Amino acid sequence: MSTPIRVIQYGLGPIGSAVARHITERSSLKLVGGVDIDPAKTGRDMDEVVGLEQPLGFKVAKTLAEALANAEADVVLHTTSSCFDLFESQITEILNAGLDVVSTAEELSFPWLAHPKEAARIDEAAKKAGKTALGTGVNPGFLMDSLPLNLTAICQRVDRIDVTRSQNASVRRGPFQAKIGSGMTVEQFENKVDTGRMGHVGLPESMGMVFHTLGRKLARYEDSIEPVVADSLIQTDFFTVQPGQVRGLKQVARGFTDAGEFMTLTFIAALEEPLDQDTVKISGKPDLEVILKGTNGDIATVAMAVNAIKRVKEASPGLVTMPDLPIVTFG
Amino acid sequence: MSTPIRVIQYGLGPIGSAVARHITERSSLKLVGGVDIDPAKTGRDMDEVVGLEQPLGFKVAKTLAEALANAEADVVLHTTSSCFDLFESQITEILNAGLDVVSTAEELSFPWLAHPKEAARIDEAAKKAGKTALGTGVNPGFLMDSLPLNLTAICQRVDRIDVTRSQNASVRRGPFQAKIGSGMTVEQFENKVDTGRMGHVGLPESMGMVFHTLGRKLARYEDSIEPVVADSLIQTDFFTVQPGQVRGLKQVARGFTDAGEFMTLTFIAALEEPLDQDTVKISGKPDLEVILKGTNGDIATVAMAVNAIKRVKEASPGLVTMPDLPIVTFG
Repeated sequence: MSTPIRVIQYGLGPIGSAVARHITERSSLKLVGGVDIDPAKTGRDMDEVVGLEQPLGFKVAKTLAEALANAEADVVLHTTSSCFDLFESQITEILNAGLDVVSTAEELSFPWLAHPKEAARIDEAAKKAGKTALGTGVNPGFLMDSLPLNLTAICQRVDRIDVTRSQNASVRRGPFQAKIGSGMTVEQFENKVDTGRMGHVGLPESMGMVFHTLGRKLARYEDSIEPVVADSLIQTDFFTVQPGQVRGLKQVARGFTDAGEFMTLTFIAALEEPLDQDTVKISGKPDLEVILKGTNGDIATVAMAVNAIKRVKEASPGLVTMPDLPIVTFG
Repeated sequence: MSTPIRVIQYGLGPIGSAVARHITERSSLKLVGGVDIDPAKTGRDMDEVVGLEQPLGFKVAKTLAEALANAEADVVLHTTSSCFDLFESQITEILNAGLDVVSTAEELSFPWLAHPKEAARIDEAAKKAGKTALGTGVNPGFLMDSLPLNLTAICQRVDRIDVTRSQNASVRRGPFQAKIGSGMTVEQFENKVDTGRMGHVGLPESMGMVFHTLGRKLARYEDSIEPVVADSLIQTDFFTVQPGQVRGLKQVARGFTDAGEFMTLTFIAALEEPLDQDTVKISGKPDLEVILKGTNGDIATVAMAVNAIKRVKEASPGLVTMPDLPIVTFG
């Protein structure tokens, strides 16, 4: 048994807490610190904050520096924010402290298209520190990008890629049901879309990763988001949705080369959505159809982030993306 | 556009000829030579032998040395034999000549379990030459090993892996229908099983790759092969199968850790087999089920071998296996 990799969990929301709990289940990893800016969490016992039975023996720190003053670490698992504006300084801080970082920040999964300058700054900081930064998760990071890319390995020709993720939100946690607009009026939903605070984050990143890796030029990118409206009364543990109110959302992103539409990503998440599966279709030679069941977002994202730690530890310095690494596997 | 990678095709049977034809469809690759020991092929125009319309401007060579006397090359695509006894000296010859090699030899896909000494010799030759050797294809190389491994990336726990490849051989070429025993009596089939010349090659390699990559000890390995018998008359372009005769085969491999059966690989290939799909089931957290359609063996193996060329060219010297490399993608 080699020495466990020492991990600090940065961000203790629902995903970060689940990551922290899961790290303690892995003999190859050791949870040595936790960071969150929320005053309701800092200074309290880490185990209590993340919902663990066994004592961890350390408190939640307010800053990374504070956590590092109390423990040496190898890797930070970062789960604070989706957006560059909020996480860039945190990622740089981690790298400057001499640590590798795996982040679930959606915009970091393939930042070279939407945020090339910020990506270049992180890449530079990583190389200067001799450390590695990776953004990953189940989506972006897998279902709509690195998995379809892996499936093209058995294709002699790729004409089109379509990925549809259809999720029955009734079996998911309350914050997820809220995030997709459950119980809103259509007007409320559309107002929230207008503020830019509605919908899955990561479609441009998945699209960018696939186009870039396959060497195609993304000539045009379009996306749309619309409410999925309830036909009849829906009651969950968290929401009551009247007929005519919103039970979820449907989001579609389209990527075009100069020759036409090459990739379509459809993200559906709604209460009582009958189809709870992902479908990857590749048109070409051969035509492939792959259907996945059981890819629950929270479990899978926590797993991917934790499983990626080993790869990031072994990787060359810099800001890397999933296709740069050997396949991530359990363990 | 970067300079095309120059490829010699070594082995001009049905798969090798398909590879050669496909290489000419890729602008990133250039077919510069062809090798086969068959006197019916050597000395003839390569394009004619592999079934290409456009002239290639070179003849089929009898040896690699002869091909290299006529053209410089970067990579050899090797498709002569499944078995170490026959291919080891060829792979070593390629590496000693200073070329990278991608081979469809099943036993090379993960040789560290069944052929550790031979694998070590190839690894040494590759490192000495500063070149890379990889065995890959759709199976072994993808469906029963590197793809299931990639799927474990989104698992927090993996208790069991089951992969079933069920193929309707009626839509496949004649030699494939012959290989699975079509039209034999059950007695003929069982006699051929006894000689060891019946069944899919590669199950121990897939099993070994998965156990090794997940860090589990393969305590015991079992496999079995049985005929699939026709209930009614079957007529294909190549075979007539009477009721009671063999229409194909079913092969099952089981891998055990000390705790019990961990992985089951089921390979079914039969005429008029109703299910033409692959199923990967991972029991754990979460339980995953993935169904693949369209993974035709010949098209997919040719694609994987050709798509892997770029990765092998970039890889560190040595004998590598699929989990050592960044995901292979089209292009």
